[in-house]
Amino acid sequence: MRHDGRKTDDIRKVDIIPHYIKHPEGSVLISFGETKVICAASIEDRVPPFMRGQGKGWITAEYSMLPRATEQRNIRESAKGKLSGRTMEIQRLIGRALRSVVDLDAIGERTIWIDCDVIQADGGTRTASVTGAFVAMALALHKLKEAKQIKKFPIKHFLAAISVGVNEGNIAILDLDYIEDSKANVDMNIIMTGNSEFVEIQGTGEEATFSRKQLNEMLDLAELGINELFLHQKEALGPISDYIQTPHLLVEGEK
Amino acid sequence: MRHDGRKTDDIRKVDIIPHYIKHPEGSVLISFGETKVICAASIEDRVPPFMRGQGKGWITAEYSMLPRATEQRNIRESAKGKLSGRTMEIQRLIGRALRSVVDLDAIGERTIWIDCDVIQADGGTRTASVTGAFVAMALALHKLKEAKQIKKFPIKHFLAAISVGVNEGNIAILDLDYIEDSKANVDMNIIMTGNSEFVEIQGTGEEATFSRKQLNEMLDLAELGINELFLHQKEALGPISDYIQTPHLLVEGEK
Amino acid sequence: MRHDGRKTDDIRKVDIIPHYIKHPEGSVLISFGETKVICAASIEDRVPPFMRGQGKGWITAEYSMLPRATEQRNIRESAKGKLSGRTMEIQRLIGRALRSVVDLDAIGERTIWIDCDVIQADGGTRTASVTGAFVAMALALHKLKEAKQIKKFPIKHFLAAISVGVNEGNIAILDLDYIEDSKANVDMNIIMTGNSEFVEIQGTGEEATFSRKQLNEMLDLAELGINELFLHQKEALGPISDYIQTPHLLVEGEK
Amino acid sequence: MRHDGRKTDDIRKVDIIPHYIKHPEGSVLISFGETKVICAASIEDRVPPFMRGQGKGWITAEYSMLPRATEQRNIRESAKGKLSGRTMEIQRLIGRALRSVVDLDAIGERTIWIDCDVIQADGGTRTASVTGAFVAMALALHKLKEAKQIKKFPIKHFLAAISVGVNEGNIAILDLDYIEDSKANVDMNIIMTGNSEFVEIQGTGEEATFSRKQLNEMLDLAELGINELFLHQKEALGPISDYIQTPHLLVEGEK
Amino acid sequence: MRHDGRKTDDIRKVDIIPHYIKHPEGSVLISFGETKVICAASIEDRVPPFMRGQGKGWITAEYSMLPRATEQRNIRESAKGKLSGRTMEIQRLIGRALRSVVDLDAIGERTIWIDCDVIQADGGTRTASVTGAFVAMALALHKLKEAKQIKKFPIKHFLAAISVGVNEGNIAILDLDYIEDSKANVDMNIIMTGNSEFVEIQGTGEEATFSRKQLNEMLDLAELGINELFLHQKEALGPISDYIQTPHLLVEGEK
Amino acid sequence: MRHDGRKTDDIRKVDIIPHYIKHPEGSVLISFGETKVICAASIEDRVPPFMRGQGKGWITAEYSMLPRATEQRNIRESAKGKLSGRTMEIQRLIGRALRSVVDLDAIGERTIWIDCDVIQADGGTRTASVTGAFVAMALALHKLKEAKQIKKFPIKHFLAAISVGVNEGNIAILDLDYIEDSKANVDMNIIMTGNSEFVEIQGTGEEATFSRKQLNEMLDLAELGINELFLHQKEALGPISDYIQTPHLLVEGEK
Repeated sequence: MRHDGRKTDDIRKVDIIPHYIKHPEGSVLISFGETKVICAASIEDRVPPFMRGQGKGWITAEYSMLPRATEQRNIRESAKGKLSGRTMEIQRLIGRALRSVVDLDAIGERTIWIDCDVIQADGGTRTASVTGAFVAMALALHKLKEAKQIKKFPIKHFLAAISVGVNEGNIAILDLDYIEDSKANVDMNIIMTGNSEFVEIQGTGEEATFSRKQLNEMLDLAELGINELFLHQKEALGPISDYIQTPHLLVEGEK
Repeated sequence: MRHDGRKTDDIRKVDIIPHYIKHPEGSVLISFGETKVICAASIEDRVPPFMRGQGKGWITAEYSMLPRATEQRNIRESAKGKLSGRTMEIQRLIGRALRSVVDLDAIGERTIWIDCDVIQADGGTRTASVTGAFVAMALALHKLKEAKQIKKFPIKHFLAAISVGVNEGNIAILDLDYIEDSKANVDMNIIMTGNSEFVEIQGTGEEATFSRKQLNEMLDLAELGINELFLHQKEALGPISDYIQTPHLLVEGEK
Repeated sequence: MRHDGRKTDDIRKVDIIPHYIKHPEGSVLISFGETKVICAASIEDRVPPFMRGQGKGWITAEYSMLPRATEQRNIRESAKGKLSGRTMEIQRLIGRALRSVVDLDAIGERTIWIDCDVIQADGGTRTASVTGAFVAMALALHKLKEAKQIKKFPIKHFLAAISVGVNEGNIAILDLDYIEDSKANVDMNIIMTGNSEFVEIQGTGEEATFSRKQLNEMLDLAELGINELFLHQKEALGPISDYIQTPHLLVEGEK
Repeated sequence: MRHDGRKTDDIRKVDIIPHYIKHPEGSVLISFGETKVICAASIEDRVPPFMRGQGKGWITAEYSMLPRATEQRNIRESAKGKLSGRTMEIQRLIGRALRSVVDLDAIGERTIWIDCDVIQADGGTRTASVTGAFVAMALALHKLKEAKQIKKFPIKHFLAAISVGVNEGNIAILDLDYIEDSKANVDMNIIMTGNSEFVEIQGTGEEATFSRKQLNEMLDLAELGINELFLHQKEALGPISDYIQTPHLLVEGEK
Repeated sequence: MRHDGRKTDDIRKVDIIPHYIKHPEGSVLISFGETKVICAASIEDRVPPFMRGQGKGWITAEYSMLPRATEQRNIRESAKGKLSGRTMEIQRLIGRALRSVVDLDAIGERTIWIDCDVIQADGGTRTASVTGAFVAMALALHKLKEAKQIKKFPIKHFLAAISVGVNEGNIAILDLDYIEDSKANVDMNIIMTGNSEFVEIQGTGEEATFSRKQLNEMLDLAELGINELFLHQKEALGPISDYIQTPHLLVEGEK
Repeated sequence: MRHDGRKTDDIRKVDIIPHYIKHPEGSVLISFGETKVICAASIEDRVPPFMRGQGKGWITAEYSMLPRATEQRNIRESAKGKLSGRTMEIQRLIGRALRSVVDLDAIGERTIWIDCDVIQADGGTRTASVTGAFVAMALALHKLKEAKQIKKFPIKHFLAAISVGVNEGNIAILDLDYIEDSKANVDMNIIMTGNSEFVEIQGTGEEATFSRKQLNEMLDLAELGINELFLHQKEALGPISDYIQTPHLLVEGEK
């Protein structure tokens, strides 16, 4: 039994509100329990210099937290004049993950800018960001498709992310909140696609280590959690989700 | 008649949701029409170096916009590595205004950090920020009072801000939205206290000028608008508002 | 009676030396009492990216103080690697004010760079900067006219700035020096054109507030002071001043 | 068969030259094939502010490449004025990994600074850096032990890192060089300790994804490679390696 | 005959106005022909961290040019956010030179800040800066002596700087102006003390080289020029110059 | 007799290893005693903006030290976010010196980037850098000549640099190591060409001064040292050295 009553394989309450802010081509407010992130997708009609002339698109992400999204106020990175290593890691991760499920050739020389702004943090901000960003991006690309600016809907698979870990009692657990995360021996973020493949695995012993057996337990939990996230994404996307291949395990689940 | 059906002396629909995020000592989500700002007040138990040893508190503000709060995506100031002049002007303005209605001696050697983060912009982000920040600050100071960390409630007067301007038809109007703001000949921000005094007047001809008569028309409109804002602030604060002197014009209005 | 013997409606001794440095297209050394500013106007034959292709010109200003222009030495902003909020506010103000009296279409795709460098500060550096910058700009534009690079002289009206305030005895005073400024309850900067219109009003209660009546007293003083500044500007410009519409109040005064 | 004649489970020629530069407390030049990194360990007699007063030590790492370590010259990060996200990720990874095998309490309030400077890059610079940094750190800590500044040798386990991946032919391979890395579908870095536990797993599909089966193949390869690296580390450390628990698999191998 | 009528061994008209600005402890406006520099000396009652606790003083210099001190407007270093290499070289040079003639022990734990701000540039700004800074520093130290904050006047020798060069006709010349400097084959700056010793020699072939014979010709010219500068410094300092050992060559010249 | 047994006119053991790293067009590892510098020359097929369209090439240099090249660890300039004045001075010096012996017209619109990275420092890093950079550049330009991208070999003369100084016993000495440098009264760097001309003389009294006689003694020593360096450069370049005019003194020496 976990401190908030969840079992080891329970994720927190997930909520995805589409079209949360009015200007972006796509946007959501996603909650994983008390963690809340505004994800916005903006479309720009050009690509960065290193991509020009290839007829291909690009997807890039930025991540930030409001100063008081956390228990203690953080100094703004704009005030410090530079991004922390943590921020850079997360935004590189989000962009890379989204690119793995999009046919970049199909979006032409356009950039999809993803902005993930955490307004309240309680663990799992990067996994909520990836999961919400996927929906915001799908909304934006659908708008592009509706406007006939692209011919086919370019998203190949669903994509979601969840954290797993090994707690201080050496038990593998799913979707850690802040209290669990701050005490965990191992912290791992998993990103998977609808066809049950991995896009990213990042596991770290926090002044600790982990065995192959524990790794396998964590991967099993992650697959469960991501499957649930796919259901929430499908619901938020409504009919747009028909353009994307139904997640493999959902299909199996229905059998 | 204005483009959204308002009369010259109408403000937009105002909404103030207190306790909007859970970590800060005080927070609100304030809306002036489609402009939405999260205002958070954090209390730190020390003051900046230039204030130390005086037994007095300090209030400072930071302001930012999400990149896609606006019609066109803006580059993050954290990515650019520096704050724009506009951002600096606004955050200096918010801090200065709040300090004018607080008894800094009464809060001891503490800093109140105000964070105003615009999640959706449609004109008037600085006036919504000041107006919402006042409420967030009052909530935080009330918590400090409840915890008996300060003896008296240190806010002397209500404080709110509104924009006024002269439109392209040379008519003075109240609470400009983005469309009006982008075409206005004159743009003016007024901050007033509950006892009907000015804290700040900033009026600028945008490649245009204005007469003393127009100035007076704008000041009259501002007083009307600010009075309405006081009503919204009182409602959001509930019984806490009893600690603050009732705005002068509300008292008069009741007579 | 003020600490230096002036009456409430006296400005300090004003001195404007045209052509003070040799390289700029226009330059002055302006003194408001002990405040001394070198204002230089440089003409560049292109406009910033956001203005290109419109056939219009642009005017932009930069402001700085020598480190020891002040009683205490200030760290150079070049050494700190960033501009302070105060510097940004002032340079945005100067540029905006000058643009309001120039026909930007008439100068073609050129940028007028205004540099205001304070070599000695004793209060009122921003108002001296605006007032001196106007003359430097007029000298530079006259040179452009003489060289037949522009067809008509593009300055529509005179422009000058003065500070007003409410002192610690609650009396409205004109053109505050540093001692007065540091004790004032209210500090206001007014920029007006030759046709008696406002370009900018910026009034701030310094941990204090002010009434509508006090505002009106300050505006009356400002108009007096600015009228005197127009006389100094006319004298410094000599025959060039004939290209600009004579200030309204000077005309009235002559009647 | 791979482009350089290696089998899928072959690592490149590894070479570790201890005491490569004279000033640091510990240093090596490590080569993984044509990848060459100078690793230096410096001991400072204090810890960063967030660690003070806990009686514990800290280990932190910095990583850089000479501009022409690569095929194309890179702009120096000192010239750009900021670190790239890639650099930050790598240096955080190195520090975190080293901290997982050191008893930080046993080193007292000291910081071990690890500098990894790549002088020639051909893939695997981060894994060579971790592997070489471990040896440099052990040399430095041994010097501290010899000088009787610490009581016990604080390293608990060996630590090494290797890359694995899935190549464009969908085959799992060990220790990718630059040519392989630039074409790989999956790129994974594994850091393990002498007792066969994981410290870090970072696997990324490069605009591609990977299955659980492929993950397992890669983990098997990594274990093989890391075992070989332990042999090279033991040899480079000579008698100092006796202070550290013999890697588990080496013990098993000997049976 | 040179372009401005000077002979090869003539320096330009030199003018030193002491007490040019009112706030600094010492200040001058120095002119070498059309080159004009404001030099200010400020005294701070502490030394930088690396000097603390030694009972010794420190002298440091900063150098800047107004943007339009030159024929073409330069971008401000504060706007660029960093100092150019040229600026850094010059300010290091000025500080180093001044330190060589001051008894740092005699000034106690104080820092003399030297600010050299070029308001008009026509070649030789660094030599004018050193020469003027010496006088400003002497004025400031004299004030310290008068206030009995130091026991003895701490300046040991006069100090001045001049440029020499080899022009495009291969002739050695003294005190190059901008036109000469921009065409010269060799550019050399010499700083000497009153006892005819060198403090600094910096000679550079500008995409050219120079012989030992030419070096000797340039050194002879420099000695002549510096001797003249000592006369100007003595005059500007008036009776304060009696505290400093009379320059060697002036004594000889009088015989 | 010096602390390491050298006579006043002895240079340290010099070693130049050509082709030290594989990617650059030219590279060496140069040692002056315990000072070791990797010099790399990279060729880019364009010039900086200020040189475009002139049909001429450009040579520019960057210099850095590994953090632990020195006795005490230095903070990386990339971590500080800016280059020190010392670094800027040195890299400007290296670029300027190399440009003085190359026919920039003959290399066409190309930039030669020189990177000097000090991996171990023991005095004389800038002179070792210039001397090694010359060889790296010659190797790179020879590759360009072999590839028939340029018609003639563009290096006109040999170029080398050495330090000289006056030690604490007031004796002139050649090629100072770190111990000597840190105690010297005078520190001078001399760069000369194969035809016995000076390219650069930079001499500084370190809180001390020097006489004309001492200057001459130092220049005599420098010429001796540089002559020896030419022999090492010739050897490292092998047959490539035949493309460059034999140093004047070597020719004389052979007579």
